[in-house]
Amino acid sequence: MHRIRVRVVEDVLDANETIARANRDDFDRAGVTVVNLMSSPGAGKTTLLERVVGELDGIRVGVLEGDVEGTLDAERLASLHVPVTQIETSAGFGGECHLDANMVRSALPQLPLDELDLLVIENVGNLVCPAEFRVGEHARVMVCAVTEGDEKPLKYPLMFRASELVLVNKVDLLPHLDVDLERLLANVESVHPGVERLCVSAKTGEGIEEWRSWLRRAATRALAAA
Amino acid sequence: MHRIRVRVVEDVLDANETIARANRDDFDRAGVTVVNLMSSPGAGKTTLLERVVGELDGIRVGVLEGDVEGTLDAERLASLHVPVTQIETSAGFGGECHLDANMVRSALPQLPLDELDLLVIENVGNLVCPAEFRVGEHARVMVCAVTEGDEKPLKYPLMFRASELVLVNKVDLLPHLDVDLERLLANVESVHPGVERLCVSAKTGEGIEEWRSWLRRAATRALAAA
Repeated sequence: MHRIRVRVVEDVLDANETIARANRDDFDRAGVTVVNLMSSPGAGKTTLLERVVGELDGIRVGVLEGDVEGTLDAERLASLHVPVTQIETSAGFGGECHLDANMVRSALPQLPLDELDLLVIENVGNLVCPAEFRVGEHARVMVCAVTEGDEKPLKYPLMFRASELVLVNKVDLLPHLDVDLERLLANVESVHPGVERLCVSAKTGEGIEEWRSWLRRAATRALAAA
Repeated sequence: MHRIRVRVVEDVLDANETIARANRDDFDRAGVTVVNLMSSPGAGKTTLLERVVGELDGIRVGVLEGDVEGTLDAERLASLHVPVTQIETSAGFGGECHLDANMVRSALPQLPLDELDLLVIENVGNLVCPAEFRVGEHARVMVCAVTEGDEKPLKYPLMFRASELVLVNKVDLLPHLDVDLERLLANVESVHPGVERLCVSAKTGEGIEEWRSWLRRAATRALAAA
């Protein structure tokens, strides 16, 4: 026997957009630059954050951590003495595979916005849905690990198109992979011409200073505009 | 101005279950064993299929290929002279991040079920949603690449719990990673005690014979039961 559920949906994405705008207004009022960080599971979002959040030259950074279950990433980042707020999507949000504007809004009261210059929102590890839901961010950054193969931009173009910066991570592993970095970069260019990209390795440190500079510039631009 | 959409949803998951049962009945009638293959993007599903589908000792195999966009994987597999049918979720299914029973059902007329013993359904690369939607399969296999880190089972437990077999892939890269294989296997065991698992490398061939045997046994069991 099937339960009947009637749901009235005011266009989900339109509603999300409205809440995202409200979030954005709150961020702007508080003078906080917000970066939405997205990738597949295990592409290295948390590690790439760990590498930079401690050394941003006086820019006060906080992290909003989205996970389906568990607080492992939040604990890793909290150990670096930055304010971390966790959204566990399995609790109250039905194990959603992405963050949406409403989830972020529900976390705002726990965020010390007035004490921050930069907020990084680490999205749920998923290469599809997070790209469809704006959460009020100023910029989107995606991490694409070379271990995922060089054809990923062609198979999951939306996230590449939606991002202002593509971090091509784990380049230290290239000698051990059948992956062509030039082809990967050409595929990124083909789905999002002109997008900024950085080849990085959280392990060797390659590109990390550039990634840190990018975040610093993003936060400073907003400070200057405020 | 918001468009108003009213959707009547007969519990989405219940409805999916009903269609999945109909698919399963069709598969059983045709004597086809169906395996639902799931993983993160780039964990190696297609490559692990390429390694085995050509050499299954007389077991006739077909592939149903789920992708958000593009036919790259389908082309790779078709070049091995196995019947491949493609479901592109961006066309007609709104870019869904998983296959559901209805998408599979819509592809059935293009599948030569009567000429197959084994059908492998390669799901969309996503570690969250595919685990929630049965499609009529007899078994679920997930691929977890060691490059994704050893804590993945704790962060995305549902897919590990839903699978009959966990393929721990890319073990050839372990010497180059800060990943503890023992800890990864212990985490798999903690979220799904007793689940079968194989450490494999599509590159070196490690574990590939065992993976092939597993598929062969799965198909033969069904043939014997028919």
